[in-house]
Amino acid sequence: MAVKVYGAAMSTATVRVLLCLEEMGAEYELVPIDFSTGEHKSPPHVARNPFGQVPAFEDGDLMLFESRAISRYVLRKYKSSGPDLLREGSLEESAMVDVWLEVEAQQYDKAISAIYIETVIKPVFFGGVPDEKVVAESAAKLGKVLDVYEARLSKSKYLAGDFLSFADLSHIPYTHHIVAGPQASLFESRPHVKAWWESLASRPAYKKVTTGTPTS
Amino acid sequence: MAVKVYGAAMSTATVRVLLCLEEMGAEYELVPIDFSTGEHKSPPHVARNPFGQVPAFEDGDLMLFESRAISRYVLRKYKSSGPDLLREGSLEESAMVDVWLEVEAQQYDKAISAIYIETVIKPVFFGGVPDEKVVAESAAKLGKVLDVYEARLSKSKYLAGDFLSFADLSHIPYTHHIVAGPQASLFESRPHVKAWWESLASRPAYKKVTTGTPTS
Repeated sequence: MAVKVYGAAMSTATVRVLLCLEEMGAEYELVPIDFSTGEHKSPPHVARNPFGQVPAFEDGDLMLFESRAISRYVLRKYKSSGPDLLREGSLEESAMVDVWLEVEAQQYDKAISAIYIETVIKPVFFGGVPDEKVVAESAAKLGKVLDVYEARLSKSKYLAGDFLSFADLSHIPYTHHIVAGPQASLFESRPHVKAWWESLASRPAYKKVTTGTPTS
Repeated sequence: MAVKVYGAAMSTATVRVLLCLEEMGAEYELVPIDFSTGEHKSPPHVARNPFGQVPAFEDGDLMLFESRAISRYVLRKYKSSGPDLLREGSLEESAMVDVWLEVEAQQYDKAISAIYIETVIKPVFFGGVPDEKVVAESAAKLGKVLDVYEARLSKSKYLAGDFLSFADLSHIPYTHHIVAGPQASLFESRPHVKAWWESLASRPAYKKVTTGTPTS
């Protein structure tokens, strides 16, 4: 029985999980949750995710939520059929994966998510206008984070070391939108960050998920 | 050689790492970083943590930062000498630990940290007055998160299941301060949350770290 992801294509957290499933070649079913009708706050969905958010994940009797936790589960469950993206066989390498995954969650996400909300969600889904002050402040914050990334990526090909890991993949959902918008220069002006992003964007899993044609 | 934690007792993230070291009975040295002189932004510390934050962690040549990543490393490295707090031997149990650790980082932390800043950091360290509007809004948000916890803890003794895990421990640093302040009723009014907290607060590791006398 294929695992199920309850989510939405506009949800960067849902995309995080789909990327991991595609990388591992796992069979899955994406069950759409309709935000416009408030389905994410409906009792059946709150039973899956008590915070009424997406994604939620079902594997038989096991129900999970929180995209980074679901992703870890997927990468472990299917570890024999895809790349080793958690490196749990090595104490040191798995620690570096964890460090840069926390950086993504605590530093990168906080800066880039505000840009995504202002420049994508507001105009595309609500017909609104971006708050340029918020965009400028968040872009400055993201620039500082990317300065740290540029220094790091001048020493290793990927964030956790010279190997691709979940720490890299976890950056894709937001970055995908921002490199296509007016803040793209934040990435293009930093040569090691630019090369890193191009390497991530060339992955078949990325192409499948972001062109909206995930296999299932 | 004992591992080193570069941090500060006022830092909840530092306390998270110390709790894990104490739970595992590990030998460690706490190297104080003086925020009042800006030591956290000094070149030697930025070399340890490129974001100029605490804690940073040193184990021989390995340098780590981000408290949840350091904690995972500590729990893995010393796993034979303390409780099994990550449950990595079980795909399902480790997934539940990850789910509730993400809930702590993404839901709980965001609500409770604002209360901590307003009611502890501002008055104690800067002689300021709490912004009561921020406190009230954050308390309302934390209350909603704790409603989910109350429901969860009515079904299992701890967050990830009927076993103590890092997901529980990771809540201690902020909760320790808030249960001693004017927002304590958020915890006392929810019987399962109250019993859960009492169980965490009775642990010797908690007592050692929060009375400011960590062994080393």
